[in-house]
Amino acid sequence: MKRAIVSSLLLITICIFAKGQRKTVHLPDLPGYVTLKCDFHLHTVFSDGDVWPTVRIDEALRDGLDAIAITDHIEYTPKKDYIPVDLNAAWKISESYAKERNLILVHGTEITRKMPPGHFNALFIKDASLIARDSVWDSFEAAIKQGAFLQWNHPGWKSQQPDGIPKMYDIHKRLLKNGWIHGIEFFNDSEYYPVVFEMCKNNNIALMGNSDAHGLISEIYGKDSNRPMTLVFAKEKNHDSLKEAMFAGRTMVYFRDVLVGKEEYAKPFFYECITVTKPFYQNERNLYFEVTNKSDIPFYLINGVENAPAFITLAANSVTRVVLNKSVKVPLQYDVKNILTGEKEVLRVELKY
Amino acid sequence: MKRAIVSSLLLITICIFAKGQRKTVHLPDLPGYVTLKCDFHLHTVFSDGDVWPTVRIDEALRDGLDAIAITDHIEYTPKKDYIPVDLNAAWKISESYAKERNLILVHGTEITRKMPPGHFNALFIKDASLIARDSVWDSFEAAIKQGAFLQWNHPGWKSQQPDGIPKMYDIHKRLLKNGWIHGIEFFNDSEYYPVVFEMCKNNNIALMGNSDAHGLISEIYGKDSNRPMTLVFAKEKNHDSLKEAMFAGRTMVYFRDVLVGKEEYAKPFFYECITVTKPFYQNERNLYFEVTNKSDIPFYLINGVENAPAFITLAANSVTRVVLNKSVKVPLQYDVKNILTGEKEVLRVELKY
Amino acid sequence: MKRAIVSSLLLITICIFAKGQRKTVHLPDLPGYVTLKCDFHLHTVFSDGDVWPTVRIDEALRDGLDAIAITDHIEYTPKKDYIPVDLNAAWKISESYAKERNLILVHGTEITRKMPPGHFNALFIKDASLIARDSVWDSFEAAIKQGAFLQWNHPGWKSQQPDGIPKMYDIHKRLLKNGWIHGIEFFNDSEYYPVVFEMCKNNNIALMGNSDAHGLISEIYGKDSNRPMTLVFAKEKNHDSLKEAMFAGRTMVYFRDVLVGKEEYAKPFFYECITVTKPFYQNERNLYFEVTNKSDIPFYLINGVENAPAFITLAANSVTRVVLNKSVKVPLQYDVKNILTGEKEVLRVELKY
Amino acid sequence: MKRAIVSSLLLITICIFAKGQRKTVHLPDLPGYVTLKCDFHLHTVFSDGDVWPTVRIDEALRDGLDAIAITDHIEYTPKKDYIPVDLNAAWKISESYAKERNLILVHGTEITRKMPPGHFNALFIKDASLIARDSVWDSFEAAIKQGAFLQWNHPGWKSQQPDGIPKMYDIHKRLLKNGWIHGIEFFNDSEYYPVVFEMCKNNNIALMGNSDAHGLISEIYGKDSNRPMTLVFAKEKNHDSLKEAMFAGRTMVYFRDVLVGKEEYAKPFFYECITVTKPFYQNERNLYFEVTNKSDIPFYLINGVENAPAFITLAANSVTRVVLNKSVKVPLQYDVKNILTGEKEVLRVELKY
Repeated sequence: MKRAIVSSLLLITICIFAKGQRKTVHLPDLPGYVTLKCDFHLHTVFSDGDVWPTVRIDEALRDGLDAIAITDHIEYTPKKDYIPVDLNAAWKISESYAKERNLILVHGTEITRKMPPGHFNALFIKDASLIARDSVWDSFEAAIKQGAFLQWNHPGWKSQQPDGIPKMYDIHKRLLKNGWIHGIEFFNDSEYYPVVFEMCKNNNIALMGNSDAHGLISEIYGKDSNRPMTLVFAKEKNHDSLKEAMFAGRTMVYFRDVLVGKEEYAKPFFYECITVTKPFYQNERNLYFEVTNKSDIPFYLINGVENAPAFITLAANSVTRVVLNKSVKVPLQYDVKNILTGEKEVLRVELKY
Repeated sequence: MKRAIVSSLLLITICIFAKGQRKTVHLPDLPGYVTLKCDFHLHTVFSDGDVWPTVRIDEALRDGLDAIAITDHIEYTPKKDYIPVDLNAAWKISESYAKERNLILVHGTEITRKMPPGHFNALFIKDASLIARDSVWDSFEAAIKQGAFLQWNHPGWKSQQPDGIPKMYDIHKRLLKNGWIHGIEFFNDSEYYPVVFEMCKNNNIALMGNSDAHGLISEIYGKDSNRPMTLVFAKEKNHDSLKEAMFAGRTMVYFRDVLVGKEEYAKPFFYECITVTKPFYQNERNLYFEVTNKSDIPFYLINGVENAPAFITLAANSVTRVVLNKSVKVPLQYDVKNILTGEKEVLRVELKY
Repeated sequence: MKRAIVSSLLLITICIFAKGQRKTVHLPDLPGYVTLKCDFHLHTVFSDGDVWPTVRIDEALRDGLDAIAITDHIEYTPKKDYIPVDLNAAWKISESYAKERNLILVHGTEITRKMPPGHFNALFIKDASLIARDSVWDSFEAAIKQGAFLQWNHPGWKSQQPDGIPKMYDIHKRLLKNGWIHGIEFFNDSEYYPVVFEMCKNNNIALMGNSDAHGLISEIYGKDSNRPMTLVFAKEKNHDSLKEAMFAGRTMVYFRDVLVGKEEYAKPFFYECITVTKPFYQNERNLYFEVTNKSDIPFYLINGVENAPAFITLAANSVTRVVLNKSVKVPLQYDVKNILTGEKEVLRVELKY
Repeated sequence: MKRAIVSSLLLITICIFAKGQRKTVHLPDLPGYVTLKCDFHLHTVFSDGDVWPTVRIDEALRDGLDAIAITDHIEYTPKKDYIPVDLNAAWKISESYAKERNLILVHGTEITRKMPPGHFNALFIKDASLIARDSVWDSFEAAIKQGAFLQWNHPGWKSQQPDGIPKMYDIHKRLLKNGWIHGIEFFNDSEYYPVVFEMCKNNNIALMGNSDAHGLISEIYGKDSNRPMTLVFAKEKNHDSLKEAMFAGRTMVYFRDVLVGKEEYAKPFFYECITVTKPFYQNERNLYFEVTNKSDIPFYLINGVENAPAFITLAANSVTRVVLNKSVKVPLQYDVKNILTGEKEVLRVELKY
């Protein structure tokens, strides 16, 4: 008695145009902090990018970001035959546009030199034109004078570092000594540099993850993959709290399925993502309980203890059932394969049912 | 200085097979109640369906449901040459399978007659074989004796009601008088029957929305559209609370973008879905505030008050910015086009910023 | 004996970055002509658009287009504080970029006036700066002097034509008399203007369908819907053949599921899209045959002859089975609901099995 | 002058239900042969599968297959308490259903034993019940007597072959000697067994790739990945030609992005997929030409000759531009990383521009 499909009644789905809506990214806050989703490395037509500055804000809203910096190159302005160089142009054009959309816009610029020292973003600046100096050290000094957060960009970029492995040159050590490197990119574009984790840990500076987009975000990362993000744990959602948190190094980085950060942030972050129920059922052999993953990040749990499931995938925005042999008496611990807490370490967690 | 894409570093995305995970459907609870997502009309190979009973449970988990009923036809068993008729087979096969997966399985069957009275599901029964009687009235009586919730199925199905408009025949009135119709399908498969709303309202019975699936859910509804659901507002998530709530008529129905129910449920449901912020910005002319829609249902707000935006789309799982002219002094009211609170009424709401 | 999923063997799917690849749009050629997929209305940062000119070419390649025109406004250049007005800038920047990518770039500009006459694109020009004149008629004349194809843009745009219905004012009639209107937009952005069909038919001018994109194509049309296109039936794929075909009015327009054009093009186009097989099976009652739709456009066949299926959907890139009652002796004719051959006409076709 | 989005005109997209349509899989024929897309290993409720036999046909049509075999287990029928064992049931139920849908249905069954010999499908049989014998050798003999094609299934399945590496036991050698192994699965479910390539090559038997689906194809393989297929190069599309081709060993296997087969089939197959144009442009340094990939399979070209691009991705259904340094005088050869022509070999091709 399979019924014919009767199309007499049509549910009309209305789809009114809704540009500028901000997607909700399901990532938890940490106790005492709000998690700000950020991208601090973006280009526009005012250096070698392909888009008008407001596009970067529209993209950020669509992707659910809370803060961005537009960081056009100081020393590389290949469109200058058509667009006169104005190092603060993107800022001037975007400032009120961002404000009206509740997006924190960070004033920034990119100091663009050969390696060493390579490329650095100066963030939270006042006037990029004052940072344009012949000597790179003068540029750094001018940025610091404006209170800048200095971020070393893509330190393993093969065009500048052919073996792909970030390396501290003398100038970097000098900067470090002055306390002038505040962050280093672990993720840039589609690359990552594992060794950056140790550099950041040893010098107590912030891990950064940014897109460095020149073209369109939607073309670069597709619809199924999130762009690289710096997650900043700020006391509040506003410009000054963001700045305070970054100088304090309270960041993690996130790209595709991979989350990277110090254990002191990664561990509570993971536990805020998940909820483990009491067993909802048991029989002679097994306990059955559920783990809810409220976040957009799937977690791949591996290296389970003896007699427990060897691996468990906690799919994003899903509830996963765990069937546990009653003989397991030890804490139910796993490595989370996609949460890196060191160059070669992953987070160890426990499911408390 | 557009950078070449260097593929030296690959982020390996691991995708371990995760059958049986339950998708989180973002629909809020009502104060004092949990919202159970349910489908009370499903077929298997034990009548004229295409799948083994456990498939219905796997599908329900994937779709994030909390409860289902498998309701094979009593009087229509076209596969009997290969599968001997056993009206409780699906129940026996699925009961423990559901229990081990934390899905509430409701024992049910479909009394399958010509119109009048048409098809009825008996839910919360003990033994379907006792409901197989020559006289339909005897079947109803036998079901009621088992404590059944009787649901009138697809009352406007054109094969039985050629004009597509549900109509109460004498036998329906007799059932009503006895208090034996406890629910009527507003949504069935891809159809809907607006007049059912008034039938339910006038007789204080539950609105029902079900798939009536014979084939595969994923083939029928695709990946982008949710299946029809009955939302039941139960005191707790368990079999008995579910039953109590259904007899009390605490349901709404949901399919695609459309939500249908009495105002007493629809209004708090809407307000649980959204959060309106205080203005985050203002200038001489306008106030700017945000509305977060935490649910999976987009809301289409229309008929705004004078000088306010004429319509606002609150996309699902998104934050929508509202720019409001300061001259608007009256409450900011809208009709929600896709929340029906009557055969021809939609919900009126206010955004309190 | 359901087998456990053994993940011992991983098929590695390599996805090397492939920017600039041209998607194949499955649309057939007409006998004697190649079908060029075109968009003749696009903006960049050189007027009020959001992107650098080369983005328009990258987008066109991704969407499988053969030709585009960038048509920045002459009279509306809101970015001039940052970008000095240069009406030929987009052309100069893109010309060789397009050539190296096998995309036909048409030099164009948009004459941008109040209604009447509204907005007009001048296509196939040599120098846009010479068309910038105080009097709009002087602008038209200057364009014609350069051999321009003049396209009347979005004639029913409500900002200029509040009732939304295109209307010929005196100046349009004067242009027509001179033979200076060569095309009119039937599709623009997400709008369409049915009355344009008759205007074009009566004056033997080309139907045009364009995006008029200011922002990013991928944001405006999503991934599931194609952008508006003008299909031009050219003798060869090159700039001059394209131009010849447009002046000859050999176009159809295509947007989402809807195809619009004169019957002389629409009919052979439809038959080039489909193949009907001989019956592959029959029984006493029915013949069974298949219709292959090789194109990306689904066709909705309605109003079937007596005893034949009332409607048939020929899904895109699919084979549809038709079960035909042997009593049908007349030609198997249908209306194709989504091929418009007039303001209120659709194409009538026959399936010859 | 960015235009407001006016929703006055809605293009109604009609989507009439179209069950049973056959997706076009874009894979070329070989000169003299048609390429039949097949799956020769499927289960239903008549052994340990989850679906009614007709579902397998509906799934096959949706996936664009030309032929399938339903191969329920002889020795494993766990649903027998509800469904009496009838080894030919799936065949009887499906035969006319397939015929009316132009799908070639091959009568089959699965001989299901411990290793050795493991599991074997008998295809092109007349009566599965006659193959149910105590001794496995008797079963083989009975199948051969019916003219069966014997396929060794998942020879590296870890439940039977713990190290995952297929191995010829004595009984396999005896079968081979008799000429009774006609095909071996290289792909099964989501697994693959590289060593099978050499087994097939050395004994001149057919490579097979099948889903071995027990549950729903759409759940197992998702929407973005094709199911495993055996491609059979038959003289015509019909049952007998299919059978002739399989006994002659004219097969390749295809799953996800990977295509596997002898060079004599793989090479012409690749060249039928692509078209290389003459250069459409050149400058002093480079030639520019295009490669069209008409198939659904992306090809990953690696190990380019000196001064040529090191790798080229020919995306599916796309046109790829190649920019070639004029200094390249040797044939433009590449390895196609995802076309395997041996256990450890890939196809070497030349792009003739």
